Amino acid sequence: MTITPSLNVLIDPGGFRTLLATAAEVEADGATVLGGVLLSLIVIYLASKLGGEICARINLPPVLGDLVGGVVVGISVLNLIVFPETGAQASDSLIFRFIEATGSLTPETLAASFSAESEVINILSELGVIILLFEIGLESELGELIKYGPQAAIVAVVGVVAPFAMGTVGLIYLFGTPVIPAIFAGAALTATSIGITAKVLAEINKLSSKEGQIIIGAAVLDDILGIVVLAVVASLVKTGEVQVTNILFLSVSAGAFLIGTILVGRLLAPYYVGLVAQLKTRGPLLIVSLIVMFLLSYVAAAIQLEAILGAFAAGLILGETEKHHELEEQVIPIADMLVPVFFVVVGARTDLAVLNPAVPSNREGLIIATFLIVVAIIGKVITGFTIFGQPDTNRLAIGVGMVPRGEVGLVFAGVGAASGVLSESLEAAIIVMVIVTTFVAPPLLRLVLERGAQTSSSTEEA
Amino acid sequence: MTITPSLNVLIDPGGFRTLLATAAEVEADGATVLGGVLLSLIVIYLASKLGGEICARINLPPVLGDLVGGVVVGISVLNLIVFPETGAQASDSLIFRFIEATGSLTPETLAASFSAESEVINILSELGVIILLFEIGLESELGELIKYGPQAAIVAVVGVVAPFAMGTVGLIYLFGTPVIPAIFAGAALTATSIGITAKVLAEINKLSSKEGQIIIGAAVLDDILGIVVLAVVASLVKTGEVQVTNILFLSVSAGAFLIGTILVGRLLAPYYVGLVAQLKTRGPLLIVSLIVMFLLSYVAAAIQLEAILGAFAAGLILGETEKHHELEEQVIPIADMLVPVFFVVVGARTDLAVLNPAVPSNREGLIIATFLIVVAIIGKVITGFTIFGQPDTNRLAIGVGMVPRGEVGLVFAGVGAASGVLSESLEAAIIVMVIVTTFVAPPLLRLVLERGAQTSSSTEEA
Repeated sequence: MTITPSLNVLIDPGGFRTLLATAAEVEADGATVLGGVLLSLIVIYLASKLGGEICARINLPPVLGDLVGGVVVGISVLNLIVFPETGAQASDSLIFRFIEATGSLTPETLAASFSAESEVINILSELGVIILLFEIGLESELGELIKYGPQAAIVAVVGVVAPFAMGTVGLIYLFGTPVIPAIFAGAALTATSIGITAKVLAEINKLSSKEGQIIIGAAVLDDILGIVVLAVVASLVKTGEVQVTNILFLSVSAGAFLIGTILVGRLLAPYYVGLVAQLKTRGPLLIVSLIVMFLLSYVAAAIQLEAILGAFAAGLILGETEKHHELEEQVIPIADMLVPVFFVVVGARTDLAVLNPAVPSNREGLIIATFLIVVAIIGKVITGFTIFGQPDTNRLAIGVGMVPRGEVGLVFAGVGAASGVLSESLEAAIIVMVIVTTFVAPPLLRLVLERGAQTSSSTEEA
Repeated sequence: MTITPSLNVLIDPGGFRTLLATAAEVEADGATVLGGVLLSLIVIYLASKLGGEICARINLPPVLGDLVGGVVVGISVLNLIVFPETGAQASDSLIFRFIEATGSLTPETLAASFSAESEVINILSELGVIILLFEIGLESELGELIKYGPQAAIVAVVGVVAPFAMGTVGLIYLFGTPVIPAIFAGAALTATSIGITAKVLAEINKLSSKEGQIIIGAAVLDDILGIVVLAVVASLVKTGEVQVTNILFLSVSAGAFLIGTILVGRLLAPYYVGLVAQLKTRGPLLIVSLIVMFLLSYVAAAIQLEAILGAFAAGLILGETEKHHELEEQVIPIADMLVPVFFVVVGARTDLAVLNPAVPSNREGLIIATFLIVVAIIGKVITGFTIFGQPDTNRLAIGVGMVPRGEVGLVFAGVGAASGVLSESLEAAIIVMVIVTTFVAPPLLRLVLERGAQTSSSTEEA
């Protein structure tokens, strides 16, 4: 492959944008951004497929392969996929060093292009998790979720209260941590990554099982509770007091959104089916559904919930219509294309440097981390055993399903770091806790679900 | 729908990125960028579906609906989808005025977010045209393209030489335009938008007809010739002389790329099929194919060709394998999702202000434009009549198929504007010529193809 020394010259249709730019600031070079995005996507797909295939062969969940593949190509090892918000610059990205070597850009244009390219990969990864939750919503059954609603609610509440209480009290009494940082770390323990758990459930066809629907219901509620908890903690850190109106508003709007979209969605569903039937241009079902999905995602984000909750609600509503099998088939290739971007990016952002015990400042963090990990796992695993009135339930699986903190946990760590309230060792400890719970949960969940299935099938056989 | 006055606060997972940002410059706000992208995609899909459905009902090609829908939501009418490189700022975008009104961002953050959001929509639209050309490649048959190669080559060469000569000479002698700007305008007449023509052909199932394959072959060759012509003209404008080595390099690398990828692709095809068969994780065929597509797109862009040529070559190669039906089915939903973004963005960028005769400076431009349009249409329509040895060919359709200048013509206008060599009226005239040929060609092509089909079927019946 011949790369010329002038990658971005006058004749380039992307470069043309830069030439036309009227803004005073340095603009990104369109062709460089596109080149960076193409190379990043190639790296992401290679990492996802290599990691996933290795995991599939040693009987681990493929999503773990995406995460580990992401770690390998990310900031911890190869530095191919790195992001400016973790302090990386264009010169830290191997892809941009390659682009720099093959092009002739000014350092400012290169920096702007790196920043723009990272934003594109960020958004593609966020579209990936939006599509994932839409797909999970499509495959979930509203009736089942409502049926197991009380169980899910208890799992979610216990899964927030137990780790928060144990973590905060433990830090204060065992480690002498001041109250505010201890509360913050406790709050970080309450998160659950719905994406990772749902992906594992889907991979082993357990999404529509009773356990699957309880976990999904509880994870959705946990996500809402987590947003409320973070709002409480953030306002506590910022102003020293809890803004009750804001918290009330958040709780009410979250409830109103979920119930409202489902009620309105059911009313409008016949019109949706009728509209799709009348369209004559390409992809009528898909495009109308994408509009619904993006609209609810936007509304959810705008009322301070998360975009993924809107996407989940959209999937749930459209999954109730007669079109849902056809729609699922069309969503699968889009999910196949975008979802790996999300998980590989989560892995790529994970900085394993905090795990290095050779760095003295990490050691205290690792000791606190060990405590947080124990609390994080126990606090969620016990939630399964709070379930009542469901004798044949794999309680352990439900608890394990709530363990991964994933990207939600990292948000807590990030807000804490930005507020300056966390000591360096406590921040590192939270990140280590998030990493370990995220990476350990997928194989663990698969293990307990498959063992449960063997037990119950052997019972049936007997 | 309740929008709170603080859209992007501490608790937002996207905002978290901003908080962590270490760069000295003002960073975009992640949540604002995501919100802007979601709203933009909703607007783009609504514009595409409304425009497309109206066109489908009045028997016009749906792709024209995408373009017109784009014009309506773009810089010319509603200002919902606007781009910084045309001089627009965040305050020019209705979407960002909405976001500003519902949020509490500093003007700098808003501007940075607008710029990042525009870059994301740009890249999504470029991914859209990449997927489109990949799909066209999949549906094309290498054997047919080679069979009609000589005809396509003649159509392409005549379609470059004729409009260039007529345009340049006409401008110099009829309008007294200086030589260099006249050459530039003549060069802009040589372009052909492969995307628009291919989409119309696909819409009426004529892509694999003889005419379709000649047009596609000629459009691909025209794209390569166009790149060479632009390189010649740009170096002429810049240095006053033609850099022969650069031109030679471009021509050789273009030929080597197309022939090389096809030869290597044929050699590697069995390994591709074998590899896909061995993969156990989700979407093996799609992901491996996307890697091939992105890789060839990157290589084509890196050797100064266009990314879409690489995507076309990838589609052509993978279309020869036994997996191509399965792959086509999986690519369709992805194309349905991304391709409309490309056409709506092309429409949204089109500034109809240059067509307003009430502005005095436009009048001279409109007169020159009328001349350019006549030359642009005649210069391409005659190409069909140069075809030899193919008696039953719809020659008119082939010529009309080469008429739309589309985004390629705008690149010429943009490079010309940036170089400062074009007068304001000549620049406006080129843009008007691009608009008219782009918008007139789809209905015209459909008309002549359908009329041709009727004639030939009535001949058969008789």
